[in-house]
Amino acid sequence: MAVKLTVNELAALVGGKVIGDGDCLIEGLGKIESARPTEVTFLANPRYAHYLSQSKAGAVLVSAGTSASGTTLIEVENPYMAFLTLLEGFFPQEPWVNVGVHPTAVLEEGVDVDKSAAIGAFCFVGRGTRIGERTILFPHVIIGPDCHLGNDCKIYSHTAIRERVHIGNHVVLQPGVVLGSDGFGFVPDSDRYRKIPQVGTVVIEDNVEIGANTTIDRATLGETRIRSGTKLDNLIQVAHNVDIGSNSVIAAQTGISGSTRIGKGARIAGQVGFVGHISIGDDVQIGAQSGVGQSVPDKTVVSGTPARSHNLWRRIEASLTRLPDLFRRVRAIEKQLKEELPENKK
Amino acid sequence: MAVKLTVNELAALVGGKVIGDGDCLIEGLGKIESARPTEVTFLANPRYAHYLSQSKAGAVLVSAGTSASGTTLIEVENPYMAFLTLLEGFFPQEPWVNVGVHPTAVLEEGVDVDKSAAIGAFCFVGRGTRIGERTILFPHVIIGPDCHLGNDCKIYSHTAIRERVHIGNHVVLQPGVVLGSDGFGFVPDSDRYRKIPQVGTVVIEDNVEIGANTTIDRATLGETRIRSGTKLDNLIQVAHNVDIGSNSVIAAQTGISGSTRIGKGARIAGQVGFVGHISIGDDVQIGAQSGVGQSVPDKTVVSGTPARSHNLWRRIEASLTRLPDLFRRVRAIEKQLKEELPENKK
Amino acid sequence: MAVKLTVNELAALVGGKVIGDGDCLIEGLGKIESARPTEVTFLANPRYAHYLSQSKAGAVLVSAGTSASGTTLIEVENPYMAFLTLLEGFFPQEPWVNVGVHPTAVLEEGVDVDKSAAIGAFCFVGRGTRIGERTILFPHVIIGPDCHLGNDCKIYSHTAIRERVHIGNHVVLQPGVVLGSDGFGFVPDSDRYRKIPQVGTVVIEDNVEIGANTTIDRATLGETRIRSGTKLDNLIQVAHNVDIGSNSVIAAQTGISGSTRIGKGARIAGQVGFVGHISIGDDVQIGAQSGVGQSVPDKTVVSGTPARSHNLWRRIEASLTRLPDLFRRVRAIEKQLKEELPENKK
Repeated sequence: MAVKLTVNELAALVGGKVIGDGDCLIEGLGKIESARPTEVTFLANPRYAHYLSQSKAGAVLVSAGTSASGTTLIEVENPYMAFLTLLEGFFPQEPWVNVGVHPTAVLEEGVDVDKSAAIGAFCFVGRGTRIGERTILFPHVIIGPDCHLGNDCKIYSHTAIRERVHIGNHVVLQPGVVLGSDGFGFVPDSDRYRKIPQVGTVVIEDNVEIGANTTIDRATLGETRIRSGTKLDNLIQVAHNVDIGSNSVIAAQTGISGSTRIGKGARIAGQVGFVGHISIGDDVQIGAQSGVGQSVPDKTVVSGTPARSHNLWRRIEASLTRLPDLFRRVRAIEKQLKEELPENKK
Repeated sequence: MAVKLTVNELAALVGGKVIGDGDCLIEGLGKIESARPTEVTFLANPRYAHYLSQSKAGAVLVSAGTSASGTTLIEVENPYMAFLTLLEGFFPQEPWVNVGVHPTAVLEEGVDVDKSAAIGAFCFVGRGTRIGERTILFPHVIIGPDCHLGNDCKIYSHTAIRERVHIGNHVVLQPGVVLGSDGFGFVPDSDRYRKIPQVGTVVIEDNVEIGANTTIDRATLGETRIRSGTKLDNLIQVAHNVDIGSNSVIAAQTGISGSTRIGKGARIAGQVGFVGHISIGDDVQIGAQSGVGQSVPDKTVVSGTPARSHNLWRRIEASLTRLPDLFRRVRAIEKQLKEELPENKK
Repeated sequence: MAVKLTVNELAALVGGKVIGDGDCLIEGLGKIESARPTEVTFLANPRYAHYLSQSKAGAVLVSAGTSASGTTLIEVENPYMAFLTLLEGFFPQEPWVNVGVHPTAVLEEGVDVDKSAAIGAFCFVGRGTRIGERTILFPHVIIGPDCHLGNDCKIYSHTAIRERVHIGNHVVLQPGVVLGSDGFGFVPDSDRYRKIPQVGTVVIEDNVEIGANTTIDRATLGETRIRSGTKLDNLIQVAHNVDIGSNSVIAAQTGISGSTRIGKGARIAGQVGFVGHISIGDDVQIGAQSGVGQSVPDKTVVSGTPARSHNLWRRIEASLTRLPDLFRRVRAIEKQLKEELPENKK
């Protein structure tokens, strides 16, 4: 972190306009409430506006029209996006794997690795697999035969990619990801289970990111597919023949059963479970720990187990707190009726 | 996939009888609604029977007595099982690891590997471990000392098997499985936790399959045991001293706490949790996301948290949807009683 | 397990007093109901006292004042703790990795490994990383650059530690742990998600143990921290910027969302989910499968989804079983009112 830039230089990086001391040297980034004079911060949420006047930051990224006395401001269109740009600048991604093939790596015959790619120590690449430009395999990645990896991918350590998996461009796999494990398919056959061969594959489209130790099973026939721009968190289970639409986000420990389809733009919280063979529409939101047992239409917000409309679920949850009391009230009514109804008073 | 067989040859493989063109060349398999003239398909579910007459498939596996004009049929006893047999034939499992020990693998002293076994790149096998006939270790498998692996096992990449684990024959471990990690045993000791040594082991019997990134802890004393023919899906947690009966199936992300016993023939859905020290009978079925807090008798179907009889749970779930309305109804009754009971009208 | 000790020698190890045959040779440990004459056992729970007189054990660890005819006793202050001490003695932890660096391991430049440490086969250690005294890396551990590992750590196989992670002393990581994966941070940016750089790190304090395949994400800025003495079970998800207090225990498959703080002394059961940005107090207990959506004060016991006071939750759960019947009762009341209220009888 030896990067040092003046406020003016930062402003140039993000296309911003300096109001105040443009020569101040900045060495890092901080939060508005705690940033130091050598740090730059941002104000995006009006709730934090009161920190602005008392901030010690060397500069604060703000929207046009924000004023503050005594604090240097950098006016930008979107302070948070500008902050992300500076975050990338101050903490450049250093992949720490050298371009080329580490001498300990094993590449089987017919492997085609672009010369701008970086293959780390102890990587194994199976025969016939192709690896694109600038793609990085961190140490201890194993890729089976006949796979394809596109350009600019980052595959972190202890990821296991089985045979015939297809990965697009700009894909990030965090450590321990498994792609292409056999789907869970067994059929009762007299007194035992017979395995259903899982001969399909997995396709990961461009700009997908997959979290640590997440598992994605290969299809029985055909493919399990994660569409472009979708982000999966850690420890997620994606079963065989699942299809997840583009630009969806799914939080940790969610599980999706076989052949279920999820639309694009989904926002799915953590520890959700989906049964198999259902269809989730586009732009759906699903609350944490929900159990989704039926198809869900486009643009729906559901929660709970079984998943219901979010509003109904909130009313049910609120009702539950008062449920023991409801029993007391019904008992009181029954007693009153018994004692006071004319029929009972004879 | 250069396999090409005539319909007559396929019929011979599955012991079937051809009705129609036995000379047609088949190159693959498909679904009845979309199979091409060079593909074979099957009809097992009567719901799909209407596809039969319009199918373009080169041949359709059917039960005896099925008729269709214009489509070649192969009559077999069980069309789906016959289809699986062909699936195995057309997509032969190609383990892509050569018989013998890869030059990069490390075998410690006293390791006994059968000469028909295949040990992939970067595998590590600890001292005194024995590996049976035709067993395959894919690249990057690590097996600790004093383990036993039987015949015809497939151990996929990044599986970690700690010391003294015993694995039977025909066992499949998908990538990233952990066997023999320490059980979670700690006892409060003044102001900290003291670790309870986990000195037992894990036994995996014949024909067990274990899914990707599933973890099975070693016993405190004695053994954690998965009995023959049982299949575990991905990301399952099996705690110390658990015993799972034979021919059970357990779906992804289920967790089983310490010392719990599960009988044979269990069918357990995903994301289920079991407390410790309970006993689940034989042939039990458990619904997804259930929380099982008590022992469950043989042949019982339970669901929900806490797990109840499946029928009761369904009635409770249905009631919940109408619960907010029930509060409204009780309020209405209370109001009516206040206004209209003779006592209150004086 | 060739250890053989007399009862007198065992007593000396645990500071106990022998009543009976101190010369009896002991070769192992057992449970009070099944221990053999060559085994030592313990009596801690009075519920098992009836086994004492009939036990065949060579010796029984008991509290002072316990009497039994015909059974050799070893009086100690805490029989269970004494048993743990003997468990450690009879089953010494044999790390099976030799001190020094295995010839297949790759250490990048500037790595500083203490000469008492043991680095197993195929380990990779990134540049600038320091590894303390007596710390053991089992085969197939990968540690990124600029990390610090303290003394007496055990890092099991297939653990992946990314760059700049700090690990204290006496830390145990079971197989497959991931430390320092990118936090799940993405922000909508026109029609796609933009990644928020995750430039913070992870700190694991002294005496922490982390279970198999558990994942701990690095912070966005700052650090994700697990404080001293805390124990995490298998398959747990800890998101970016989480802070878990000291001497807490968390059972398997629990997930903790970003920036949530958990106090010290927490006891958290399995499959619990925490939303982000909440604060859990000290000495809190949380029931299995709970969904914690709000901050929880010190010394509170909560359960359920959403998590409520444990007592209220138990009453709600009990009410649910009778909920279908409550609907019937309310219908009966409504019918009775309709028929019998004077208003309705006109």
